[in-house]
Amino acid sequence: MKAIIISIGDELLSGDIANTNGSFIASKLNEHNIPVIRILAVGDDADSITKSLEEIPEMVNIVFVTGGLGPTHDDITTKVAARFFDSELVFQQDLYDRVKARFAGYGIPMNEADRLQAFFPENCERIDNNYGTAIGMHFFKNGRDYFFMPGVPHEMKGMLTEQILPKLISGSHKKMQVRTLRTYGVGESKLYQSMKHWMEENPNIRVAFYPKDRGNDIKLQYYPDSEKAVENLIQQLSDSIYGFDSEEIEEKIAKKLIEKKWTLAVAESCTGGLIASRLTDISGSSQYMMYGIVSYSNDAKMKLLGVKEESLKKYGAVSQEVAAEMAEGVRQYSDCEIGISTTGIAGPTGGTAEKPVGTLWCAVSCLGKSEVFHYCRNINREANKIRFTQFALKKLLEKLK
Amino acid sequence: MKAIIISIGDELLSGDIANTNGSFIASKLNEHNIPVIRILAVGDDADSITKSLEEIPEMVNIVFVTGGLGPTHDDITTKVAARFFDSELVFQQDLYDRVKARFAGYGIPMNEADRLQAFFPENCERIDNNYGTAIGMHFFKNGRDYFFMPGVPHEMKGMLTEQILPKLISGSHKKMQVRTLRTYGVGESKLYQSMKHWMEENPNIRVAFYPKDRGNDIKLQYYPDSEKAVENLIQQLSDSIYGFDSEEIEEKIAKKLIEKKWTLAVAESCTGGLIASRLTDISGSSQYMMYGIVSYSNDAKMKLLGVKEESLKKYGAVSQEVAAEMAEGVRQYSDCEIGISTTGIAGPTGGTAEKPVGTLWCAVSCLGKSEVFHYCRNINREANKIRFTQFALKKLLEKLK
Repeated sequence: MKAIIISIGDELLSGDIANTNGSFIASKLNEHNIPVIRILAVGDDADSITKSLEEIPEMVNIVFVTGGLGPTHDDITTKVAARFFDSELVFQQDLYDRVKARFAGYGIPMNEADRLQAFFPENCERIDNNYGTAIGMHFFKNGRDYFFMPGVPHEMKGMLTEQILPKLISGSHKKMQVRTLRTYGVGESKLYQSMKHWMEENPNIRVAFYPKDRGNDIKLQYYPDSEKAVENLIQQLSDSIYGFDSEEIEEKIAKKLIEKKWTLAVAESCTGGLIASRLTDISGSSQYMMYGIVSYSNDAKMKLLGVKEESLKKYGAVSQEVAAEMAEGVRQYSDCEIGISTTGIAGPTGGTAEKPVGTLWCAVSCLGKSEVFHYCRNINREANKIRFTQFALKKLLEKLK
Repeated sequence: MKAIIISIGDELLSGDIANTNGSFIASKLNEHNIPVIRILAVGDDADSITKSLEEIPEMVNIVFVTGGLGPTHDDITTKVAARFFDSELVFQQDLYDRVKARFAGYGIPMNEADRLQAFFPENCERIDNNYGTAIGMHFFKNGRDYFFMPGVPHEMKGMLTEQILPKLISGSHKKMQVRTLRTYGVGESKLYQSMKHWMEENPNIRVAFYPKDRGNDIKLQYYPDSEKAVENLIQQLSDSIYGFDSEEIEEKIAKKLIEKKWTLAVAESCTGGLIASRLTDISGSSQYMMYGIVSYSNDAKMKLLGVKEESLKKYGAVSQEVAAEMAEGVRQYSDCEIGISTTGIAGPTGGTAEKPVGTLWCAVSCLGKSEVFHYCRNINREANKIRFTQFALKKLLEKLK
C-alpha cells in the first residue's frame, strides 16, 4: 500500500495555517506502516482539486482528501468529486433529517446552505461523522480507494481513527516500533558519522535526525526483531542521550531527587530564571525545589549568595571561581543537598576576546563538593540561554546518577 | 506571477512535523500578492524530488524548494537539482573555506560529510545563508525561477526574507500592509463579536485570528488606503492590545524601565522563574533587572522576602496578602523602584474549592505602593504558568504607563 494526502483549503495556500491535518493523517498511516509518498495542499477551486485527483502517481492505491465538505460557499469538494467519479448528486432525505436534527440539537435554525449537505453522490459509500454535520465519502475506482473527510481537525481525526483506519487495516499490517533517542552535546553531522557504520549494518531500521533547540533527536522505526540492534545503539550513544521519546531532563532530575529525598537550590545569572522555570514545570516540584535566585548584578551575587568581592574583582563575574561560589553559596543558604549555578555571556553584547559571547561557567555543588563545567558556543541570545540551561541540567543529571 | 512550494523531507511524510516552512513562505508571498497555487511535501528520495520538479503546472513561474541541502545522508537535493538542470557538481574552494571557518568559529572539527557541502552546481547562482552552512541555489530555466533553500526554519526564513524576496519583488507589486494586533485577556469568540461590525464595514481588510499561548493575535492585511480604519480598530481594542507584530510585553517593559531609569526585582512562586526568564530574554536587561527570587517554599518566602509567618498561617501562601508582602519584600530587599510577585496554583494538584487550580494572585509594588490582582483560569500546568506570567507582565506594563 502507498498513500497520498490532498488537503484542500485557501487558508493553507495563504499561509494562515500549517497543514496539520496532513501531518496527523501521515503519522497515523506511518504507525500502520502505510507509507505516504506526498502531501499536497491545493486551493478551494474546482480546477485545482480536479487536477490534484488526476495527477495521482500510478503506484498509489489509497488517497486521503480533507476539506471542502461543509456548507459554505467555498465548500465544493463534494461537487468536484461527484463529477470526477461520474456520479450524480442526489437529494437524500435521511441526510437532510440528520442535519436538521443536529441543528435542532444546537438550538440554531437551519438555512438553505445547510440543506445542500443533503445532496450526496449516488455511487459512494458514506463515512459517518460523529463530531459534525459533514458526511465523509469513500469512492473506489480502478483499484484505488479514495477517502474524503472534512477539514475541521477534530472531525477529521474522529473520522479517520474511528471509521476509516479500523476498516482499512487488516491483521496483515505489522505495526512498527517507534523510539526517539534525545541527545545533547553532539552536532548532527558528528552524530551521523558515529552512527554511519551501525546504519549500514541495520538497513531495515529507519533513522531520522531532528535538530531541536534542546539537542538532536534521533527517531528510529523498526520491527521487533531489530530490538537488539537498537539497544546496542543506545549503549553506544549513552553518554549523549538524556532521555527517550518525549522525556525531558527535568523529569529525570525530578525522579532522582525524589528517590534520594534531596532538595535543590538554583543560582542563575545568564540563564535568568530559565533553569528554575524548567525545574518547576514538573508537577510536584515543590518537593525538591527550594530556592531559585536570579542574581544578575554583582551586588545580588554577594548579598544573596555570599560570593566574595575579591573573586568578582580578581576573576570577574563570568569565571569558574564565581560559578563555584554561587553554587555552594545558594546550597548553604538554603540548606539543600544540591546547589547549581550558571554565569556566562548570553549576548549579543558583553563578550570579550577572552570571554566571548556564548561562554558559560556552570557549577554543581553536591553535599559541599563543587564541580565546575565550561561551555562555549554562540548562536543567538535566546538559543544560547536554552543551550546553557540544557547543558547545566545535563551536568546536574550526571551528578545525580 | 504564480508560485508553488515544494518541501522536501521524510519527516514531513512521516507526520513528525507539520509543514510550517510551506506556510511561512506562502504567507510571505501572499503579503506581496504573489498567489501560491500548491504546496507539496515529498520525501528525501531522488525520484520523488525529480518528479515534483517535472510536474510543475504550466502557469507557474516561481518555484520554492526547501530541505535537503545539509550534510547528512538524506540531504540529496543539491545532487538531484544539478541533474535536473544539467549541471555538474564542482568542488568550490571558497565554499569549503566558508564551511571550515564556520566550524572553527564553533570550535568543533570539520568532518568528511561537512566537506561535501563544498560541492556545488556550476551554472547556478548562490544564495547566501547568514545563519548556517548550507548555501541556497537559484536556477532559471524556461522562463521559470527556482529557489532552493535549506529546511532548517530559521535559515530558510533568513534566506527568503533577506536574500530572495528583496530581489524578486519589483516596485510594480503593490505590497499589502501587514499588522498583527497582539491581545491578551479576551477570548477569540468575544473578540470576533466585538469586531464583527468593523469587519463588515471594511470588507477589503483581510482578518485572521490566531489563538496563542500568550493571547489572541489578530492579523490584518490591507492596502495603504485602509490605514485609517485599522487605526480605528486599534483605538477600539486598545485595552486588550499589549503589542504589535512580533512585539512582546517584556520589550515594552524594558523600554519603560530604561526610560525611567528604574530597576526591578521579581519574587515568583507559581511561575517558578518564568517571569525572570522572560525579562532577561531582552539584551541589556542587566540595566534594570536586579534580583529574581523563586520562593517555592514558605521558608523561602519568609527568609528571603520577609513575608510574615502570621500572614502565611492566616491567609495561606496563595493569598492577596502574601502576594503584596512578597512584592514589597523583594523590592525593599533589593532597593528597587519596582517589585513584582506571583503566588498561585499551577496544578494539576494542589487546588481546593476556595482556591482552585488556575488561581493566581499577583502584586506590583511601585515605590512602596502595592496593588494586587487576581486571575483564575485552568488549562494545564504549562499553559497556566505561561498565562500567569503574561497576566503579571501586562499588569506591570500598565503600572509603568
